[in-house]
Amino acid sequence: MCRRTDGDILSGMAWRSENLNEVQTVWWEPGAVCLIDQTKLPHARETVRCKSVEAVAAAIRELVVRGAPAIGVTAAYGMALAARKSAATDRPGLLDELVRVKKILDASRSTAVNLSWATGRMLGVARKTDPGVVEIAERLLAEAHEIRDEDKRMCRRIGEHGAALLGRGSRVLTHCNAGGLATTGYGTALAPIRMAHEEGKELHVFVDETRPFLQGARLTAWELREAGIPLTLITDSMAAHFMGRGEVDCVIVGADRIVANGDVANKIGTYGLAVLARAHAIPFYVAAPTTTIDLSLKSGEEIPIEQRDPEEVTHLGDQPLAPEGVHAAYPAFDVTPHGLVTAIITERGIVEQAYEKELRRLVQAG
Amino acid sequence: MCRRTDGDILSGMAWRSENLNEVQTVWWEPGAVCLIDQTKLPHARETVRCKSVEAVAAAIRELVVRGAPAIGVTAAYGMALAARKSAATDRPGLLDELVRVKKILDASRSTAVNLSWATGRMLGVARKTDPGVVEIAERLLAEAHEIRDEDKRMCRRIGEHGAALLGRGSRVLTHCNAGGLATTGYGTALAPIRMAHEEGKELHVFVDETRPFLQGARLTAWELREAGIPLTLITDSMAAHFMGRGEVDCVIVGADRIVANGDVANKIGTYGLAVLARAHAIPFYVAAPTTTIDLSLKSGEEIPIEQRDPEEVTHLGDQPLAPEGVHAAYPAFDVTPHGLVTAIITERGIVEQAYEKELRRLVQAG
Repeated sequence: MCRRTDGDILSGMAWRSENLNEVQTVWWEPGAVCLIDQTKLPHARETVRCKSVEAVAAAIRELVVRGAPAIGVTAAYGMALAARKSAATDRPGLLDELVRVKKILDASRSTAVNLSWATGRMLGVARKTDPGVVEIAERLLAEAHEIRDEDKRMCRRIGEHGAALLGRGSRVLTHCNAGGLATTGYGTALAPIRMAHEEGKELHVFVDETRPFLQGARLTAWELREAGIPLTLITDSMAAHFMGRGEVDCVIVGADRIVANGDVANKIGTYGLAVLARAHAIPFYVAAPTTTIDLSLKSGEEIPIEQRDPEEVTHLGDQPLAPEGVHAAYPAFDVTPHGLVTAIITERGIVEQAYEKELRRLVQAG
Repeated sequence: MCRRTDGDILSGMAWRSENLNEVQTVWWEPGAVCLIDQTKLPHARETVRCKSVEAVAAAIRELVVRGAPAIGVTAAYGMALAARKSAATDRPGLLDELVRVKKILDASRSTAVNLSWATGRMLGVARKTDPGVVEIAERLLAEAHEIRDEDKRMCRRIGEHGAALLGRGSRVLTHCNAGGLATTGYGTALAPIRMAHEEGKELHVFVDETRPFLQGARLTAWELREAGIPLTLITDSMAAHFMGRGEVDCVIVGADRIVANGDVANKIGTYGLAVLARAHAIPFYVAAPTTTIDLSLKSGEEIPIEQRDPEEVTHLGDQPLAPEGVHAAYPAFDVTPHGLVTAIITERGIVEQAYEKELRRLVQAG
């Protein structure tokens, strides 16, 4: 069961004093995978403690935790939780159970590849661990911690590589939230922005609100404000206007899956931004860890696009935004062809062309 | 004072039985300009009765009535109301007052040119009317009725001209609400859609929700549903995705001002759609009456863009969507260069090229 603690509705002042660097996205407590509830931020800060694999899968599905890297870490802890809670008495029984658990977790969301990457890695570790069920459980928890720590290091590296692309006074547009809340560290798309800000480059960030879940308005605006980075919140429909006025120098977004040819699946709205950026001769950057790269798919056409409940479009929480019963669509992601991507920023370096060859090289360098 | 009647919160069923063709947008009652409150639709149907010019200006400013043609008719009735309520005892006194009233009304919104067009026409009529104040007041009310009736006829004509551009099974994308609620008749952008639907062309309409005011989700979705026209409501950020999949055959939008060279000011988000349409080789049509054409401005750069309160972006009604105090922007309109406009559909015909010359010809044909 997923138990929610009583949330403190943060007052303006209390909330202003929060430092995001202290806000954990995913963490472990004995017997529970803990998550800050991102459906409630920034208006309330609540912790969700998932004490079963089903609860972890539900939390991923319901966007309590979101962002490809954070989902990967959460799923890794989910595998560790399953091993710890398992009633299996021998190694084969536990491995069978972990195969089943991997399927449950992988099915919770369909587009972000970090999810199945993390569960696959955990299963591989379990299979390579010789002794009994207790040892496997301990080993898996250690591996989940390691995945989390790698995620933190990966964020810093993306920041270091990406910051070099941002000049003094750059005006950067971002979409959705590929920040600290989408990872366990510094963020992906926001990492270069944070790093450049720390270097004193005096950036300004245009934050797309990112309908329908408002990750930009709720999460990115919060993170940037906490970090003291100047921002302007805009509706998604305003991006072209500011590009047309010459007020945007580049776009940086995250990714949920990057396939062999460099096509990128990311939050719905990303493809449109990429087309607009190209039309205005503005660089369009994608920042993501190499765990987001899926060499098993040749092109973006093969990426499964999650279709979410249209009620998330027609309603804001319980509040109806549209006439009752109106038909709506909610493809949660879109695919940006590699030809519109100026560069992909990873923790192992920046790829600017020849994606097919270079992405393979980066993955194999791991 | 602007008095609001107690609104009936319509239940799903009551509301389903509404026929939009029976819903009046703007109408006259002795001593009051009456408006259906578009800030409340479709969730509640309330009438706002404006008994002073200040109340009319406030209703326009607060979007109780919106849509360039509807604003024009409302302002015309506002001038008639002023004449009727005036304490002036002679013709010069009344004309002085009407000049002052025109300024108040014109200042209520800055981008839609139909507003100053209508007040200018009313003032011109007052100046040409010879006898005393009572006669002028009567003449102005008759003129406001005439502007309303012309608006209704204009909508039908736009529908007739525009429907010819829509083939059987066309999948049309529209933004904001340029429908019956934006006019006193059949709509502008929605007129060709309605007409083609009546002709049995089996259209499907993608409706951009149109943040932040949600004219698409609240008003256009309602109008189309009432008219029995199949629709899919999408967030503004989804348009590119559906265009990229080949699911959109054309875009039709309204306009708040069209200048001499054919540049078009319309709801924020329109420019981005025009760029996306061009990138996908999809026709982009603008439907508007000739009263929306402003030959006094040479290019779109000269159009004043209304900047609205950013709280309308950071809040939905009283509900905060973003962290407290975050900086936001709300340019209410953007400008689409004529080069991205495939055709302009007016009540006097369709202009497809040589906008400079052809728009002038259409205006002078009036």
